[in-house]
Amino acid sequence: MFEPTAEQPQAQDLNAPSKNELKNAGQQELAAQKAATDVDYAAESYGQLPLHQSQSRPGKPRVDIVSLPSHVGDTVLLRARIHNSRAQGSKMVFLNLRQRTESVQALMIVSPEKVSKLMVKWAAGLATESIVLVEGIVKHSPEIIKSVTVGTVEIEVTKLFIIAGVETVLPFTVEDADRTEADIEVSGNQFNRVHLDTRLNNRVIDLRSHTNQAIFKLQAAVGDLFRQFLNSNGFIEIHSPKLQGAATESGASVFQVSYFKVDIVGNAFLAQSPQLAKQMAIAADFERVYEIGPVFRAENANTHRHLTEFMGLDLEMTIEEHYHEVMELLDGLFLSIFRGLRKKYQKEIQAVSRQFPAEEFKWREGPEGTLKLTFKEAVDLLVEDGVPREELDDIKTENEKRLGRVVRAKYETDYYIIDKFPMELRPFYTMPDPTDPTLSNSYDFFMRGEEILSGAQRIHEPKLLERQMRGQGIDPESMRGYLDGFRLGCSPHGGGGIGLERVLMLFLKLNNIRRASLFPRDPRRLEP
Amino acid sequence: MFEPTAEQPQAQDLNAPSKNELKNAGQQELAAQKAATDVDYAAESYGQLPLHQSQSRPGKPRVDIVSLPSHVGDTVLLRARIHNSRAQGSKMVFLNLRQRTESVQALMIVSPEKVSKLMVKWAAGLATESIVLVEGIVKHSPEIIKSVTVGTVEIEVTKLFIIAGVETVLPFTVEDADRTEADIEVSGNQFNRVHLDTRLNNRVIDLRSHTNQAIFKLQAAVGDLFRQFLNSNGFIEIHSPKLQGAATESGASVFQVSYFKVDIVGNAFLAQSPQLAKQMAIAADFERVYEIGPVFRAENANTHRHLTEFMGLDLEMTIEEHYHEVMELLDGLFLSIFRGLRKKYQKEIQAVSRQFPAEEFKWREGPEGTLKLTFKEAVDLLVEDGVPREELDDIKTENEKRLGRVVRAKYETDYYIIDKFPMELRPFYTMPDPTDPTLSNSYDFFMRGEEILSGAQRIHEPKLLERQMRGQGIDPESMRGYLDGFRLGCSPHGGGGIGLERVLMLFLKLNNIRRASLFPRDPRRLEP
Repeated sequence: MFEPTAEQPQAQDLNAPSKNELKNAGQQELAAQKAATDVDYAAESYGQLPLHQSQSRPGKPRVDIVSLPSHVGDTVLLRARIHNSRAQGSKMVFLNLRQRTESVQALMIVSPEKVSKLMVKWAAGLATESIVLVEGIVKHSPEIIKSVTVGTVEIEVTKLFIIAGVETVLPFTVEDADRTEADIEVSGNQFNRVHLDTRLNNRVIDLRSHTNQAIFKLQAAVGDLFRQFLNSNGFIEIHSPKLQGAATESGASVFQVSYFKVDIVGNAFLAQSPQLAKQMAIAADFERVYEIGPVFRAENANTHRHLTEFMGLDLEMTIEEHYHEVMELLDGLFLSIFRGLRKKYQKEIQAVSRQFPAEEFKWREGPEGTLKLTFKEAVDLLVEDGVPREELDDIKTENEKRLGRVVRAKYETDYYIIDKFPMELRPFYTMPDPTDPTLSNSYDFFMRGEEILSGAQRIHEPKLLERQMRGQGIDPESMRGYLDGFRLGCSPHGGGGIGLERVLMLFLKLNNIRRASLFPRDPRRLEP
Repeated sequence: MFEPTAEQPQAQDLNAPSKNELKNAGQQELAAQKAATDVDYAAESYGQLPLHQSQSRPGKPRVDIVSLPSHVGDTVLLRARIHNSRAQGSKMVFLNLRQRTESVQALMIVSPEKVSKLMVKWAAGLATESIVLVEGIVKHSPEIIKSVTVGTVEIEVTKLFIIAGVETVLPFTVEDADRTEADIEVSGNQFNRVHLDTRLNNRVIDLRSHTNQAIFKLQAAVGDLFRQFLNSNGFIEIHSPKLQGAATESGASVFQVSYFKVDIVGNAFLAQSPQLAKQMAIAADFERVYEIGPVFRAENANTHRHLTEFMGLDLEMTIEEHYHEVMELLDGLFLSIFRGLRKKYQKEIQAVSRQFPAEEFKWREGPEGTLKLTFKEAVDLLVEDGVPREELDDIKTENEKRLGRVVRAKYETDYYIIDKFPMELRPFYTMPDPTDPTLSNSYDFFMRGEEILSGAQRIHEPKLLERQMRGQGIDPESMRGYLDGFRLGCSPHGGGGIGLERVLMLFLKLNNIRRASLFPRDPRRLEP
């Protein structure tokens, strides 16, 4: 499969301790012939390695780029991508080597009995994004190299092998992917911009960018911070099924699944949220539960903030006295996430803001606490700002964003809560307000004027729940399993559901939710 | 909705500090009339509370049963279930109060100006599984009460209110659900056994059992231990889409989903595993990734160990020299899970073993390490044990279990690895062995003779991958997005997928995987 050529001699088992002497070009060619038949033969200075099938395990440590400054003077071995390369005459080539978000300069110079002209020529011709195994000596760089992240040292390459090549034309380079709008303006070349669809169609290379490596480290961080806070507050993680027997919550926007023979169980549906399961867990005495899992929305909405599949961070807890216990816990959760991100992930946040410049996300700390408005107060703020009151039965996306601007100007925060939504805007299982039946014990949380959490006290009393179902045209019989849970006795409870990608998009101001999803799904996208 | 009756006076806002004086029975009835119209009125000694709509928030702390021994002499307030009750004459009733896995005895005695005969009668008639709010004085119990978990104290009840009643006939009680086979034998009544289907049909009450509360705490623990180990080994958590454009891996056993209009994108399929996404994340330089998410298998297999939806704990990592790096990391992961469970969750393990007695799960510690057999060695062991060699092209379930017994007898371990599976038993993306193309760089992990993990080095080279696809009758064009990832250059890598429910079932010897799933899904079950 990997036949050696004159220009790309094949080598193998670079690391075998006794076999890595350097050879001159003539010896290399002989060795390459041998390597083709003898996988245990070793020690060319350069070339394509045979297919890595775990032929041997010499146990020679490989280093990370970030650790190189502590290896000055050492000969090191590392696996990296070729981010780019630049030949200087025929005797020298500079390679920018990359591992995730770190990069270092490597230098290859013709040198008797070490590096042949052929080897330099070969190295200069290596495709960007090739994965190479590099052996070299770590040296202090004469001056700090600004084009890499680890600029105080450089590697003087003694051996260079391809582990995996690139077998297609790159749709764009990782450098292209990381280009900022400012870079593009300076270059004056609008064609340098990589559009979102091109990125998503070629997501594997897009994800290699510095920005994306940081975004998905932050995505994992949000999940970790979510779990840490809840685990330390007596919650237990549950996993509820995504396949459901009935199209619950709202029949209109669920995906239908062929589930075995129709005459055995009929069709199934994908859960629109873990709502019903979470509540059953409360009825089953779990007291405080959370789930991190996919939620599916069959809404044909191609907006900047909707996906057909996204990660739900859901929780549900029993209430002792008042649903504000839940709202306050959720507030504590968000503050803990924001603080955790700012404290521990400053580097990643900075990396993203290079490409997505934004005013830093603001929230209120200190005794005044998070801004909490009632729905009515929010409407009043918008009316004060000039929106006709009659448009504000609901606060739609456009006015939501306007409210975000009004709130930021007035209260200096990008994060706030709206409480006491009108009952008619909420799902059937929402608990009505005790004094005004047109209102409900429900809240939304906002970041930069967009909803990131919707939650409420739920109805735990089966007769009221049935009445509300009927009021919204849902046949209680179709949700019998759910109702039965409450008939068996269920504590007052409430909770909420957070969209992971939305939190990430809005904290970082990515402007499109697809950028916060590894392989996004929308009405038009099912690949890759 | 909750009209007060003579026997069940309604009360409200029990906790309002200035209003909780005790009243005699006559005053109670008057108060009840008032409570019906005035939600702020308070302070009956017993009765049904009005629907909890968060009417007020007195901020009176409620205690956990487990903390009661530190409250001796105090008047406390707590929310609990009535696990069972027993009247003694007309002047005294014993209530066994339960919160999750903890329980305590409460005692109500007729006492002038405090507890009326009517109140005792009412309390004695409360339905099992009602949720009550109890006020009472914590006292040392005269002798340790064996029927509860917190037996050194008891509560002398002064007030008792229903928060949520039971509005159906219980299919079985939580006591029934927790009955052991030994209990049933002693009772001589086989009808006391709650069968698995009955449990699953009434999962909400079944999950309240001591055993189930422990099982799902352990399920969450396995997930936590999985993440902790991987986070501290440089892994990043990813979330990949479950909706896929093509029926990948093996077309036969995936669920089909109606995804918008066929003329726009056609049908979608549910991912059988995050395999392809994990590998694309490696091609995208994430280096080490894991995912915890649902996996869907449309196999019509009604066995003790198959679910149509289960939780996959998946990981994938780059390889430097040899795929045994992955196998060893996975081994370290399992040891970390086993040790973590045994060290921190002994109480829960004991609780489960009451109902599911089993020889304690055994693994090898110390320098010899985990038992690793090659597939060939495993076959030899079975042949030695009397299985005809010609039956052993594959090791099917029955022989797998036999192997588990042979291994336990010979090596004193319930946990072991089988390496080097024949290529023909593995999926197309498995890397062949470098010296014997009939073998592969793949492994399975076993607990008590059942597979809990399957993994391998994967093919990272696109031409070989295409060839293997064709060899298994898969059109490379149908998996173009996946192949393109490798054409863009991908490091050698390997990984594995763990079934969370299987690990839990086998560690605890639950004998049926449905017991390890909150709301299990199998070919016949989509509810609750």
